[in-house]
Formats: sequence, structure tokens, C-alpha cells
Amino acid sequence: MASEPLFDKIALIGIGLIGSSLARVVRRENLARHIAIATRGETTLKRAEELGLGESYTTDFAEAVRDADLVVVSVPVGASGQVAEAIAPALKTGAIVTDVGSTKRSVIAQMAPHMPEGVHFIPGHPLAGTEKSGPDAGFASLFENRWCIFTPLQGTDPAALEKLSEFWRRCGSNIDTMDAGHHDMVLAIVSHLPHIIAYNIVGTADDLESVAKGEVIKYAASGFRDFTRLAASDPTMWRDVCLHNKDAILEMLARFSEDLAYLQRAIRWGDGDKLFDLFTRTRAVRRSIIEAGQEIDAPDFGRQALEHPPKPS
Amino acid sequence: MASEPLFDKIALIGIGLIGSSLARVVRRENLARHIAIATRGETTLKRAEELGLGESYTTDFAEAVRDADLVVVSVPVGASGQVAEAIAPALKTGAIVTDVGSTKRSVIAQMAPHMPEGVHFIPGHPLAGTEKSGPDAGFASLFENRWCIFTPLQGTDPAALEKLSEFWRRCGSNIDTMDAGHHDMVLAIVSHLPHIIAYNIVGTADDLESVAKGEVIKYAASGFRDFTRLAASDPTMWRDVCLHNKDAILEMLARFSEDLAYLQRAIRWGDGDKLFDLFTRTRAVRRSIIEAGQEIDAPDFGRQALEHPPKPS
Repeated sequence: MASEPLFDKIALIGIGLIGSSLARVVRRENLARHIAIATRGETTLKRAEELGLGESYTTDFAEAVRDADLVVVSVPVGASGQVAEAIAPALKTGAIVTDVGSTKRSVIAQMAPHMPEGVHFIPGHPLAGTEKSGPDAGFASLFENRWCIFTPLQGTDPAALEKLSEFWRRCGSNIDTMDAGHHDMVLAIVSHLPHIIAYNIVGTADDLESVAKGEVIKYAASGFRDFTRLAASDPTMWRDVCLHNKDAILEMLARFSEDLAYLQRAIRWGDGDKLFDLFTRTRAVRRSIIEAGQEIDAPDFGRQALEHPPKPS
Repeated sequence: MASEPLFDKIALIGIGLIGSSLARVVRRENLARHIAIATRGETTLKRAEELGLGESYTTDFAEAVRDADLVVVSVPVGASGQVAEAIAPALKTGAIVTDVGSTKRSVIAQMAPHMPEGVHFIPGHPLAGTEKSGPDAGFASLFENRWCIFTPLQGTDPAALEKLSEFWRRCGSNIDTMDAGHHDMVLAIVSHLPHIIAYNIVGTADDLESVAKGEVIKYAASGFRDFTRLAASDPTMWRDVCLHNKDAILEMLARFSEDLAYLQRAIRWGDGDKLFDLFTRTRAVRRSIIEAGQEIDAPDFGRQALEHPPKPS
């Protein structure tokens, strides 16, 4: 039983991992009659067209959003302001405009001033992604069982919020709502700090003279490789996240470094009890994450199963 | 065609993840006529017996190694000295004694002085493991396509070294040989630092007041959970690694912190180019690791595939 499309026309501004995954799930779930795709890069746009991700393709953002009922902006957060400025004159009254940015205070500051009367601007952030980027990297199930967080402005129309929530639910997500400032603090610890730390340790290893680069790569399976996944994420996206959630990230970095100094001191002075206490406490955190359904319990992330897939009987 | 067993009797001292994986692969590959299992803990020993991992079971290390042709010590590195002392009087002339410890200079310092004339002591380190521990966590394919590093002492008998190499090859491993000091430096960057950093960030997140513990767990999929795998590793093993590879670890920690301070400064002063440069460089490292066959290329570690396994056709 195919349900009625939620929207007549959806415009996707940006067609990378998130935008192209949205295009695929919108198609699969029949959420719109028309998907308009817009991106600045001619090559990316052409690739999206080859993949058949939408009904219309343009490098002109204003053209894409004309008559659109829902506009989803999926660009690096540093480009949000320019996009808002470009689409503003073409937005239809009653349209919902949302984004997928990993920082919310900065996106609101950049976009809100451009939004015309009668347009529903609802900032959003689907917590979904992989280390891959570009229109080829997307897939329709990316948002399944993932959280989508809204940080609505004061006075947001409840009907528009409900319609956008329904859209994300049909993409497979669970909805949460919180204050933009709190979002930025939460994401700083669960996402931004882990990415920065991963980038940093891979950089440190890459710079060593005492250990050859070839050795780091050869023996990466003993722990190091777990970090390289996050450190392979899109550089433009992550540069922008660092620049646009500065305060919360600096706060988390300060705490992390303080804790690391404490740990370092315990190693230097041979304080085994302090080390054992920390190493025991952190085990429980993983257990909770698995119980919350946010992680699989397969040892080694199930890499064994993927490297040696069970033979069909 | 079952080949002849390599050894008449193998003694496994310690029957955790590594010891019990060895027991399983020795059985599967028919590498010994008799597997003797010894561990200090009565409960663990009983569990090993229930699992049928060997032919004989004892809490007396000397009894286990009597008449053994190969002795594999798989205990936390801090216990190596005691084990060497306990087994020394019972070792047969011509026996090979090896270990699986993650630090090599310290293990050599602890064990070598106890080794009798005529016994071949060859320190070893299979780079294999998961975040699970105990005899139930082991599996026969743990060592497949993994490196096993030997750090032989001067004057090691080439025939004994070759026999031990053949043993590990039949367990599925590739063999490497290096100096113990270099091993400790390599492992400090590819394994010890990543584990310490992972433990540290999970601890930092666990201590926050501004973000509730429940939120960290709920939104862990956005990056944080990648760290929790390493931070769930065995606390006793990792306490001992920190205490027994102190110098190399402190050196790596100092470099990591220095690099992090540089990155932090770039964030504070909004230096996007520096961030972009680092974030681009680290991408290449992951590509090399995948090309070296040390990691799978499935996005998100293939969690998607495990969460939604393809239906058999």
C-alpha cells in the first residue's frame, strides 16, 4: 500500500552523503512527487543526474526551491548563510526550510535573518553518517533507527514541526527536540571531540620518525585503525564544524587534556590502581551503549564476520 | 589430509581470550597431541574444562609444563616474572617457552633470568585481540592474517625459532621479527596510545555535568561509540601494559598532546586552513591501511551490513 506523498516538491540543496541518502529514501518511501536537486559543483550535479537521484537538477539554488514545500539544506555548516541568502527570495509562503548541520547555534545565526515572513525555518540535525562522502556514498537506510534532533526557534508553528517530524520518521528516524545551545554541547562531546581526537592521533602517528609510516599501517589492526575511520571523514565538513562550534569544542578539549594529564601522571608514577579504576569504569559505558541499541555487540565491530562471512548452508 | 602434530604436548599458561583462542586453533589444526591448561583462577579453569579446551587442567603451572615441548604464557605482562619463576624448575630440556605479551622489553627482563640452560625462550606477540576477555571470548580464527612479532634474544637457536614460526603460521599468522625496543616503540603508537586515548575520552564524557550520561549513550553513534570498543578492553591487561611500557608510552603521549595543543590553537584562532590540511592528510592514512589489507572498506565498519544482514536469496 503506497501512501500519498507528504510533499509535492522537495528541494535538496547539497547532494553529498546526507543529501543523496535523503534523495534515495524520499524516492523509496514516496515522500514527494518531485525531487529538485541543486549543488554548486557541476561534476557533482552531473553525477547526481547519472544516478537518477531526482526529477530536476540545477546549480541555481533559487530555481531549485521555487514552489518547493520542503527545502533541506545539506551543505558544510560554514556555507549555510550564503545558501539562505540565495534561496530566500524564491521561497514559497508556507514552505518548510530545514538543514542537517552538525552545529546549530551558528546555523541559526547564519540562516534565520534571511528567512522571509511565512516561511517555516526549523533547524535540524540527523545524527547519521559514515566516513564516506559524495553522491555515490549515500544509501536509503542511512537514517534508520538514528536520531534526528530539532532545535526549533521560539514561535515555531506546531503543524510545520509535526509535518517535518513525520517526514523524518518516514525516513526511519526517531525525533528529539532540544535547545540549540544544549545540542551544540552534546554534539561537542559525542561527535566533535571524538573526530578531532581521531584526526589528531592519526596525524601524530603520521609524523613519527622513530616508527616508519609503513609499520604504522602494517600493524594498524592493534587499535590504531579504529581511529582512522573517523579521521577519514570529509575535511571541509569538519573544518566548518570546528570553526562553528568553537566554544563548546574548546571546553571539551580542555577537559579531555586535563584528564589525559592525570592519566599520564599515573603512568609516570606507576599508579596502577588509578589506571585500573578508570579502565574498569569505561567498560560499563560501552555496555550501556549496546543496551541502548546504539552499537552492535559483535567483537571487533563484527569485522571477523565481514572478513570471513559465514558460508550459506 | 591431517598433518602430523607439531608438538607432543603444549602447555597454555593463562586461558583468557588469547590462551583459549590458541587452544581452539591448536585443536582444529591438530598442532599437538596433548593440550595442558593452567590458570590461577579456579572458576576460569573450570570454565575451560566445561568448554573442553584441553586434555588436562591444573592451577599448578609447574605441573602443566612438565614434559611440554611448547609453553605459551598468556597472562597480563605484569605477571610474567612470577610465571617464569614458577615454571622454571619443571621445564624440560629442549622445550620452547614463548609468551604473547604486548610489551617485550619488560617481559624479557622478567622472564629471561629464570630460564634454565637448554630451554629456548623466544618472546613473541601476536597482534590479535578483541575487546572481549575470558575463555568464552576466544575463537579459532583470531590469529588469521594477523602479524605475530618475535623479538628473539641474541644466540637464539634458529631451529627452535623456525619451529615456533611454523606453529604460528599454522595458527594463520604472518611472522615478523624485530628488536624488543623497537617493538615497544611501534606498539606504543599503533596500540597503546590508541587504547589510552580511548579510555581517556570515555572517562571525560562520563564525568560531564553539562551533558547527562544518558545523552552520551543515546547519541553515541555520532562518533563516540568508535572509542568505546577499545575502552572496553581488559582493565588488568591494560594497566600492566601502561606500567610496563612506560617510557615509549610517555613519549607518544607527549607528542600527541603537543599536536593537540596546536590543533586547539587553530580552532581558537579560527585557522581553517591548518584544520583542513590535517583533516585531508589523515584521510590518506586510512586508504593505505585498507590497501594493506589491515582494515575493511565497508563504511561505518560494516555495521550497516550487520544491523541489516542481507537476506539469503
